[in-house]
Amino acid sequence: MKHKVVFKSIGTVLCIEAASMLPSLVVALINHEKAAIAFALSIGIIAAIGAALMRIKTPISRIFTRDGFAIVSLSWILVTLFGTLPFLLSGSIPSFIDALFETASGFSTTGSSILTDVEALPKSVLFWRSSTHWLGGMGILVLMIAILPSVSASTINIMIAESPGPAPGKVVPKIRETAKILYSIYIFMTAVLVVLLLAGGMPLFDALIHAFGTASTGGFSSRNAGVSAYNSVYIEAVITIFMFLFGVSFTLYYMILKRDIKSVLRDEELRFYVGVVAAAIVLIVLSINGTVYRSLGESVRYASFQVSSIITTTGFATADFNVWPTFSQIILILLMFLGACAGSTGGGIKCIRVILLLKIIKREIAKLNHPRAVQTVRINGRRVEEETLSGVMAFFFFWMLIIAASSLLVSLEGKDPVTSVTAVIASISNIGPGLGLVGPMGNYAGLSALSKVVLTICMLVGRLEIYPIMLLCLPSFWKRSSI
Amino acid sequence: MKHKVVFKSIGTVLCIEAASMLPSLVVALINHEKAAIAFALSIGIIAAIGAALMRIKTPISRIFTRDGFAIVSLSWILVTLFGTLPFLLSGSIPSFIDALFETASGFSTTGSSILTDVEALPKSVLFWRSSTHWLGGMGILVLMIAILPSVSASTINIMIAESPGPAPGKVVPKIRETAKILYSIYIFMTAVLVVLLLAGGMPLFDALIHAFGTASTGGFSSRNAGVSAYNSVYIEAVITIFMFLFGVSFTLYYMILKRDIKSVLRDEELRFYVGVVAAAIVLIVLSINGTVYRSLGESVRYASFQVSSIITTTGFATADFNVWPTFSQIILILLMFLGACAGSTGGGIKCIRVILLLKIIKREIAKLNHPRAVQTVRINGRRVEEETLSGVMAFFFFWMLIIAASSLLVSLEGKDPVTSVTAVIASISNIGPGLGLVGPMGNYAGLSALSKVVLTICMLVGRLEIYPIMLLCLPSFWKRSSI
Repeated sequence: MKHKVVFKSIGTVLCIEAASMLPSLVVALINHEKAAIAFALSIGIIAAIGAALMRIKTPISRIFTRDGFAIVSLSWILVTLFGTLPFLLSGSIPSFIDALFETASGFSTTGSSILTDVEALPKSVLFWRSSTHWLGGMGILVLMIAILPSVSASTINIMIAESPGPAPGKVVPKIRETAKILYSIYIFMTAVLVVLLLAGGMPLFDALIHAFGTASTGGFSSRNAGVSAYNSVYIEAVITIFMFLFGVSFTLYYMILKRDIKSVLRDEELRFYVGVVAAAIVLIVLSINGTVYRSLGESVRYASFQVSSIITTTGFATADFNVWPTFSQIILILLMFLGACAGSTGGGIKCIRVILLLKIIKREIAKLNHPRAVQTVRINGRRVEEETLSGVMAFFFFWMLIIAASSLLVSLEGKDPVTSVTAVIASISNIGPGLGLVGPMGNYAGLSALSKVVLTICMLVGRLEIYPIMLLCLPSFWKRSSI
Repeated sequence: MKHKVVFKSIGTVLCIEAASMLPSLVVALINHEKAAIAFALSIGIIAAIGAALMRIKTPISRIFTRDGFAIVSLSWILVTLFGTLPFLLSGSIPSFIDALFETASGFSTTGSSILTDVEALPKSVLFWRSSTHWLGGMGILVLMIAILPSVSASTINIMIAESPGPAPGKVVPKIRETAKILYSIYIFMTAVLVVLLLAGGMPLFDALIHAFGTASTGGFSSRNAGVSAYNSVYIEAVITIFMFLFGVSFTLYYMILKRDIKSVLRDEELRFYVGVVAAAIVLIVLSINGTVYRSLGESVRYASFQVSSIITTTGFATADFNVWPTFSQIILILLMFLGACAGSTGGGIKCIRVILLLKIIKREIAKLNHPRAVQTVRINGRRVEEETLSGVMAFFFFWMLIIAASSLLVSLEGKDPVTSVTAVIASISNIGPGLGLVGPMGNYAGLSALSKVVLTICMLVGRLEIYPIMLLCLPSFWKRSSI
């Protein structure tokens, strides 16, 4: 690992974090909240450390895969650690473990909370809490690449490490341009959402909070009852649609801008995603209509919101699906695993990986019938490398293995199996609510410190798709390489 | 598919099934049971159809992979269908769906039951029920290969399709000799177990039933209370040890006979299997001692029996692990997935596959650190082909996919999620009891016909390791090829 390059990059990221606390400081000042002091202090501390790291002198050098992974994983860990400062210093969340859980939940866009009464918090703290969502959604390092002249000659490996999906595509050949385009689309869509929420009568503060929660597929709300608090079909419909939209690969939006509609309509991942969402809504409506809800309208309303929320791993809830029929619950659990499209702000295994896995299986069966035929797997007409396929299959097992190991650790505190296992799935997939005690009307406050730490790690492992965090566990990784 | 060769082989298998009902007929005659008529009729029907199929004239020809798979899957389906006859004709299980479930559960060595009072059944019917276990354990087609002169020049593809594991090894170069050796070891170990159970005071009939259930890792008992009925530490200890032994690859026993102890001790799968069993027992003892059981002795007794039973996918139970702490339950669920060693009579994903998957992950992580290094995966010092690795990874996803789809179907009847999902896992892994309503003290009688059919398919899919059954779903597979 190139220590100097890595620490210099981390310094930049910390300065961005400090800057991103400024809006929260403004909110504190406008509302005359004491938390302003906490924010001023946090910004000072983080900026000072960041600036110090940025002053490390290093020649421009190539960032290899492992350096990119190191920058991303260490940045995320430090940003999460320092992100707890406003919670701790303002006294909003006195426990460090709880603050860590909440901050990791924010940045990873999980949206699980240990808070039982969010409305009691200062507005500025709530604003910071939701700012972490928005930053984590598209990625704080992608933002760094977008706004700063390259600290290094090759930032693609940072992008690869932070962006979800098996083979993150560059929208345009230049990586910095790609990052700019992605963030421009992200900002534009978030702004449209804010306007639409304001049009539905939501106050500006709430509109920003819920736009951050939706755009990042995070799920933090400023209200204890979440989106249900507004009791508005219009607001629910807007959020349902935008959760769905933020689950689509941003590359496709760029293609729409370039008027390449044909390719968008032909995109296999989009088709799969739309098909799964439609099928899940229909099946759940059939399951809950007449049993949980009386009218078809209500059933469609709640089914579509919950499906859109879970598959995109947002985690907003307008219904307690703990009381839905088992069939609906199993569909939601499967959607929790699946997740959204690669290149979106959503989490989970991602549609593209599942499509590839299904194609691999199809090929395995065909092989039995025609053992000598060589068959390639294709996506959107292009051949997928065998190494990518192998990586996707290994990823799937690794994902399940982490769920197994984490479930075992969480089960130590003796909550029921459904709570233990779905808490882990909801954390690694960056969703938020699971089933049982951590269901949509439940909370993570009652879990033990061990469980909270395990779930915190799961959130980061899930957001960064395993490898950046795992690499940190390799002793050989820490050996210094040239410069 | 070579229809003639396939049907001729199926004819042979049906004749073996008819012959294997003779001992049950003898039991019926000895006990003056009316079921004797049912057995006589069943034998007549099955032997007649089998003999007719055997008379199909076909030149000796090569059996390709797909022909081997066709012989195995169609044989298993027909043997299961015809195996219901004694249950139906004797009136012991009047419902066809129930009889099908029970027979599939028998042959696949699952051991789930729709019977709520087995002690009410005629002894001969119970004997047949457990005979299906013993035949299914090592495989009815392996038996065919062992006792009959080859119907075809290459029976290896039949052996591959029926034997569990990613790459079933030939013990000796000749496939017929291999089959003979495997069955000899199987018969010898079963006989030793019968003697040991008799020595513990078990009546001969019960000893045979429980030896069949243990040797095949099946789990059917002749007593409503199962192994607990004898309330004997000695019997429980014998069965604990023998379940464990039947979960070991039979190839290792042959190596012991050949005095190649060194290779046995070095075998990676055996070491992993022993390690997992030991770790699981220790962890469960720590979890249940003092909470569920008062003495350490009791905790060890129940933990070791349950662990040995679940990892080998036998499914005997001497404790209601539904009331164990969640931690212990999660361990058992993980063991349900894992299963025993390849080349044993046990089910599940198999230790060897999980070892390979872990090695693949290790390699993926190492790749990040040294992207250009070419690393091979080795087992017992030998390089594993990339194609085998790819097949194992695809198998794992396929296995999980079938569990997901089947859970969804079983959840339709509205039982709780834990019951729905563990019923599927317990079926595909050929275990028997799951958790919740289908726990060790529960039963499958209360499930809907749809669930029973889905679980029946899962049992066969699990026993034959997916592909033989899946191949039947391919339209192109049914096209006739030469002869």
